[in-house]
Amino acid sequence: MSERYDIAIIGSGPAGISAAINAKIRKKNFILFGDKNSSAKLRKAHAINNYPGLYGISGNELKNRFLEHLQAMDIEITEERVNNIYPMGEYYTLLANDKMYEATTIILAVGVNFGKPLTGEEEFLGKGVSYCATCDANFYRGKTVTIIAYNKHEEAEVNYVAGIAAKVYLVPMYTEPVEVDESVEIVQGTPVEIVGDQTVKKLILKETELETDGVFILRDSVSPGQLVPGLVMDGSHVQVDRMMQANLPGCFAAGDIVGTPYQYIKAAGEGNIATLSAVAYLDELKKK
Amino acid sequence: MSERYDIAIIGSGPAGISAAINAKIRKKNFILFGDKNSSAKLRKAHAINNYPGLYGISGNELKNRFLEHLQAMDIEITEERVNNIYPMGEYYTLLANDKMYEATTIILAVGVNFGKPLTGEEEFLGKGVSYCATCDANFYRGKTVTIIAYNKHEEAEVNYVAGIAAKVYLVPMYTEPVEVDESVEIVQGTPVEIVGDQTVKKLILKETELETDGVFILRDSVSPGQLVPGLVMDGSHVQVDRMMQANLPGCFAAGDIVGTPYQYIKAAGEGNIATLSAVAYLDELKKK
Repeated sequence: MSERYDIAIIGSGPAGISAAINAKIRKKNFILFGDKNSSAKLRKAHAINNYPGLYGISGNELKNRFLEHLQAMDIEITEERVNNIYPMGEYYTLLANDKMYEATTIILAVGVNFGKPLTGEEEFLGKGVSYCATCDANFYRGKTVTIIAYNKHEEAEVNYVAGIAAKVYLVPMYTEPVEVDESVEIVQGTPVEIVGDQTVKKLILKETELETDGVFILRDSVSPGQLVPGLVMDGSHVQVDRMMQANLPGCFAAGDIVGTPYQYIKAAGEGNIATLSAVAYLDELKKK
Repeated sequence: MSERYDIAIIGSGPAGISAAINAKIRKKNFILFGDKNSSAKLRKAHAINNYPGLYGISGNELKNRFLEHLQAMDIEITEERVNNIYPMGEYYTLLANDKMYEATTIILAVGVNFGKPLTGEEEFLGKGVSYCATCDANFYRGKTVTIIAYNKHEEAEVNYVAGIAAKVYLVPMYTEPVEVDESVEIVQGTPVEIVGDQTVKKLILKETELETDGVFILRDSVSPGQLVPGLVMDGSHVQVDRMMQANLPGCFAAGDIVGTPYQYIKAAGEGNIATLSAVAYLDELKKK
């Protein structure tokens, strides 16, 4: 078990980066999870005209400036996917692939690029549906697993599972060419529904059906409602107040995930508020 | 009467500038009131480390970047002090010295540097207390006026009043040397209370008392509760929801004036939200 962080920030887009900058200034012990290259959405933005002080900057340039800002302050991005966050009362436990972290407060800044859950996905979560191949592959020794992968970089995970399970289907949701072990059966199609009784029995696609004991869904990020049990959502957004406080004590959120407008400067402003709220919360805890 | 603007933005600090940038992008007909040199607080900030993308920038450099951003987008700052804003139902009337403006929506981004009102100030507003020397000096022909000025640049107003009133006292609240017409009597001291019956009779200072028919209080900005009749405040802050909507339809607010944390990036983010909310409000009106 590693040390307990004051603040765990999940997401390295504008909101998460702004949150991390302020955590550093406030001298908190924190960890920033996310893509070392910030958010894909930001990188691909053409010209941004409404980030005050940086007129006409491209998304890629703004991303570079953000990363330079982190570097200047000696802040690192931990490139691990956080799969589950459990409220433990006094703190949160974060599961990131095969590692476990603890933090007194969390700031969710995961953006909104997680897509709608499949029918049956939430029902069978933990009963055959998993978001973490590394964590759960061992339960499928000698069994059949179907992996729905949203990114080519998941292929390493697919090969890992193929070394354990008896049979692996891969449903690639990305456009790049698929390069996986020969034992993996590639199924092109659109997943529609997961069905079963006590546990998963089948993945139904528009085009076909697959009999399977497990479905691993590997998205870039997971809906926060699925990530943190007990978190109150407002539709697909985390419900927060003006101080970016969610319903769970010590849980804050910022950026696109808390709602429109989906704008970089708004996200950066909210990241600032979220950290200062987390700091106030930590200060209060100390007094107790 | 001038044209009716879609949006009037009051304040040219980070929140007001961010609001204006977005109003321009959304092709709205808007006016931005404030100091052409942005906010004094920003200009004087030493090093700002938490404006993501601009690590270690001085307040003055950030101010310059903001002004360059405005220039690049062909946005001007109208340097007039807005003294009163009246909700007219379908629109707002703004009084700025001797001019009148109309706008369908307003965004209050006036910061928090207006200080606490004096005892008696609100009671005698319009009954001898005024925030606008240019507007009200004529009522004091042959009478005695006391001017409490918070900035050296008000000295022109003081001289203007001295040309009309029989007697002018100036209580300078600034540290620079006072240079006004010889007829003006300078009174160094700390104003405490305004007293009178139907109208103002006296200004009481810690050190002395002045018999006077009027008290002109010339601050950098006026408390929004005094600026806009009917605006609901939360202590000294404008009460807004997460979309920066105040209680009056078409009235939005952003930046320090809506509450802590008092941070540039938070203010800029809120200016963005306020304008997009104003745009949504204008779009709704069009449908009616």
